[in-house]
Amino acid sequence: MSFELVANNYGKSRVRLLRVTRTGPQHEIKDISVDIQFEGDFDAAHTKGDNSKILPTDTMRNTVYALASQQPVGEVEHFGTRLVSHFLANNAQVTAVKVGISEHLWSRMGTEARPHPTAFVSTGNERRTAAVTGTRERTTVSAGIEGLLVLRTAGSAFDGYMKDSYTALAETRDRIFATVISAEWDYRVEDATFGLCWRTVRGALLETFADHPSESVQHTLYAMAEAALERCDQLTEIRLSMPNRHHLAFDVSRFGIDNRNEVFVPTDEPYGLIEATLRRN
Amino acid sequence: MSFELVANNYGKSRVRLLRVTRTGPQHEIKDISVDIQFEGDFDAAHTKGDNSKILPTDTMRNTVYALASQQPVGEVEHFGTRLVSHFLANNAQVTAVKVGISEHLWSRMGTEARPHPTAFVSTGNERRTAAVTGTRERTTVSAGIEGLLVLRTAGSAFDGYMKDSYTALAETRDRIFATVISAEWDYRVEDATFGLCWRTVRGALLETFADHPSESVQHTLYAMAEAALERCDQLTEIRLSMPNRHHLAFDVSRFGIDNRNEVFVPTDEPYGLIEATLRRN
Amino acid sequence: MSFELVANNYGKSRVRLLRVTRTGPQHEIKDISVDIQFEGDFDAAHTKGDNSKILPTDTMRNTVYALASQQPVGEVEHFGTRLVSHFLANNAQVTAVKVGISEHLWSRMGTEARPHPTAFVSTGNERRTAAVTGTRERTTVSAGIEGLLVLRTAGSAFDGYMKDSYTALAETRDRIFATVISAEWDYRVEDATFGLCWRTVRGALLETFADHPSESVQHTLYAMAEAALERCDQLTEIRLSMPNRHHLAFDVSRFGIDNRNEVFVPTDEPYGLIEATLRRN
Amino acid sequence: MSFELVANNYGKSRVRLLRVTRTGPQHEIKDISVDIQFEGDFDAAHTKGDNSKILPTDTMRNTVYALASQQPVGEVEHFGTRLVSHFLANNAQVTAVKVGISEHLWSRMGTEARPHPTAFVSTGNERRTAAVTGTRERTTVSAGIEGLLVLRTAGSAFDGYMKDSYTALAETRDRIFATVISAEWDYRVEDATFGLCWRTVRGALLETFADHPSESVQHTLYAMAEAALERCDQLTEIRLSMPNRHHLAFDVSRFGIDNRNEVFVPTDEPYGLIEATLRRN
Repeated sequence: MSFELVANNYGKSRVRLLRVTRTGPQHEIKDISVDIQFEGDFDAAHTKGDNSKILPTDTMRNTVYALASQQPVGEVEHFGTRLVSHFLANNAQVTAVKVGISEHLWSRMGTEARPHPTAFVSTGNERRTAAVTGTRERTTVSAGIEGLLVLRTAGSAFDGYMKDSYTALAETRDRIFATVISAEWDYRVEDATFGLCWRTVRGALLETFADHPSESVQHTLYAMAEAALERCDQLTEIRLSMPNRHHLAFDVSRFGIDNRNEVFVPTDEPYGLIEATLRRN
Repeated sequence: MSFELVANNYGKSRVRLLRVTRTGPQHEIKDISVDIQFEGDFDAAHTKGDNSKILPTDTMRNTVYALASQQPVGEVEHFGTRLVSHFLANNAQVTAVKVGISEHLWSRMGTEARPHPTAFVSTGNERRTAAVTGTRERTTVSAGIEGLLVLRTAGSAFDGYMKDSYTALAETRDRIFATVISAEWDYRVEDATFGLCWRTVRGALLETFADHPSESVQHTLYAMAEAALERCDQLTEIRLSMPNRHHLAFDVSRFGIDNRNEVFVPTDEPYGLIEATLRRN
Repeated sequence: MSFELVANNYGKSRVRLLRVTRTGPQHEIKDISVDIQFEGDFDAAHTKGDNSKILPTDTMRNTVYALASQQPVGEVEHFGTRLVSHFLANNAQVTAVKVGISEHLWSRMGTEARPHPTAFVSTGNERRTAAVTGTRERTTVSAGIEGLLVLRTAGSAFDGYMKDSYTALAETRDRIFATVISAEWDYRVEDATFGLCWRTVRGALLETFADHPSESVQHTLYAMAEAALERCDQLTEIRLSMPNRHHLAFDVSRFGIDNRNEVFVPTDEPYGLIEATLRRN
Repeated sequence: MSFELVANNYGKSRVRLLRVTRTGPQHEIKDISVDIQFEGDFDAAHTKGDNSKILPTDTMRNTVYALASQQPVGEVEHFGTRLVSHFLANNAQVTAVKVGISEHLWSRMGTEARPHPTAFVSTGNERRTAAVTGTRERTTVSAGIEGLLVLRTAGSAFDGYMKDSYTALAETRDRIFATVISAEWDYRVEDATFGLCWRTVRGALLETFADHPSESVQHTLYAMAEAALERCDQLTEIRLSMPNRHHLAFDVSRFGIDNRNEVFVPTDEPYGLIEATLRRN
């Protein structure tokens, strides 16, 4: 029998970093988690136990802290690019480096008029993400949003669908529509206006989610993707993944109470899952 | 051998409810999870398998939805009180009912000037909580906050502590202070101004966390509890529980880079845990 | 206004330790997570920022590793007692120390006839727990089980219960009974035969869960507690907490298929929660 | 601007099912979670809000229960194939169906000599998985293991690796090797001896993990994949993903205690992540 090692990769995951920048009385913080993966000439490690071409994942981790100490993290896409460049420049055995970054978002305490210089409150589960992949030939940059939980109470329907012998769902012109938006998009160039784009795409997704006359999750997801591509022309493609966090109307009529479509049971499972990719022509 | 059933209780946990109120074009939502526990005369169920005094937990759950459909949930403390009263009034076998409510918080989309009438975004992991306990004699109401993740980058020290043969920690006048605030307080009366108090206490905790010249977690926790009791005189007692979410300075000097106290490793475990109860005299 | 610090405690949580013992070719491992809490004279830390009586939680953590390196962990109750004694002996300011230990269980690989000397597989989510509390006067030892997930498909009924206007549950003589057993018990003496007792109690709980003709969760929970106290006379009291992991019969009759009580929907929430304490007279 | 819908899919996730089979006094149970995804002609739903080709995900869910009530689940690969066939046969608009199944494993209570007929205990977090993908042309079947947590205390080294200016890790010939095995493999044919293969592959992975003289995670991972392909010739390819659950030696020498490589700190993050795909030629 003979076997072929058709693919392999390795790296360090969940390297957590808080970078504080104290250039003035107002401190800035960046709170990120970094995943690094290498592809390259690692066959001898697998087949012979020869580690001479293996950069330890502990070294990858140290590199994150070393680079972050030399200058501020900046936009996560830029920090990802710095890491990718560093690893490619110093590791001839590596053919591709992928760096994924997930940024935990914090709000400055205080008010807009009187922002607190050094205190912050977490904005929750939403994450800003970036993925930078570099080879000897080219570097590609993607960005995204994860964990953005939203809900609307009007303008969402689901009817006119296929029926078969296992159909039980009632058609409705008025349902709760709740989802956790996951989005990822690709940039046309290696150095886009990342921060601005991210905020623009986020705004487009939220606004469209809120206002679109929805005939289904698919229908609104498509409109959201379209709005993102329309508002930010540095995007070439966007991928959306949206679970349908079902809110089941609780039937109180069996207790002699009028059903007024006001009382719902939020459920986590099972859930619908709708995904699509939209590309600019 | 003889054994005594010295305590017992039962109920339903995690009854999830979204209540939508559509009295005008602007919808209101309340998203809660309810835990119910009964104490009472349930010995026969345990010792003889006699269920005649057992109200099924499924009925407890249905009651949550039935009561929520008859009128809006309102403040969680009020809804807890309604549930407690209902169960005591209809269950002679029950001596005490405890209802715990955890409210998931949502922000209305749009701007302050143009709030969206029907779309919401989750504010994250922070929860508003309430606990109402009722017996035939009296009802007590507590409220709280869970999951309020905060961080400050200045004005936090820890030194002058005890040393022994296992001491390794370096003293510092400048560390990251991060914690997840859990607070619970008792109200003097059954019908306080719950919403206002909750916002006032939350504000007092956040402000004090941000501004207190901190010599330790204990020192700031005490000041936070004190501020809460000072600002809202309807509180008789407050309990705070604050993990120390350690952020370890990463030593880059071993790589020939200056340590400037800017690069930290956030850690989840192990964690310090500091708790105290402050009571108004 | 004046406030009183009516209670306070602090310590380190989730100190994780793997202790390997290599006294022969067959290695032994102990994988635990330790929580430590101190009570004592810490008012000055709270009110004045004076840390002179504060032993840092980092030192508590180091102590766990130092004591574990001096001799094997042994039974978790013994290791908890060693930690409590150490802290009381070296910290005059402390009035009470509580050490909680949660042991992750591993099975040795290989067969009973040919056990593997150095390789192990996790036995899952079940944990063996111990809690040791020491003051200047006395030490008490408790032990327990957490996360023991069990299920039975026969001999479990629930009927004859109270009905009211919100009753919807159908009575049944044949339901799925699934739960996650949490048990905690107190030992009569500070030095019981901990390992043997733990296995005996675990066996009693499992056997009774499996075989008891069940009229309700309460009914079986009581029988389980009784069996534990009967089989191990070193126990003075046992506390059981059992969620009812409902398995809802899925009604296939609406699709023209016979309901044969074979197809169930496991649900995580909401769940019934039943608790009781049984004490030896 | 014009955009293209380059990919889309939808379905239901986490459809949980417990199937009880009571053909004799000894009951059998199958506890699974099913994910279903459709690809097909759904453009009109996205672009026009036309649901006429959308089979609701609620109907997909009902189909799982309906098919499970008609005959026992059997091997998860077979149940996945039944679901795929059903959906393709009844949905002309669908071009591809993917069904993923995750099986929660239970052990029968009692002893081998006296197995309990109707009571079970969970075997933990390990899952048996299957993935069946069907189009109009062909069906492919994969299977796998998730969450298999293992640890060895001998015969694991890591040295001879690349050094650079950020290297801090010490070389070692004796470290703890712990990982959570995730494996997925493809079957040559649509109807392999799935149950037997699964147990054979699992045995090969465990044995090799335990006994392989390990120079790195890569080295042992490769040997594990090789052993799986060698022992079961119905496999064409296997993919392994193994995090390195680092156990850091705790340095007690700073406290004047001898370091004997016996005391370790298990850590969850950061973690190394090693992945490879091995294919039979």
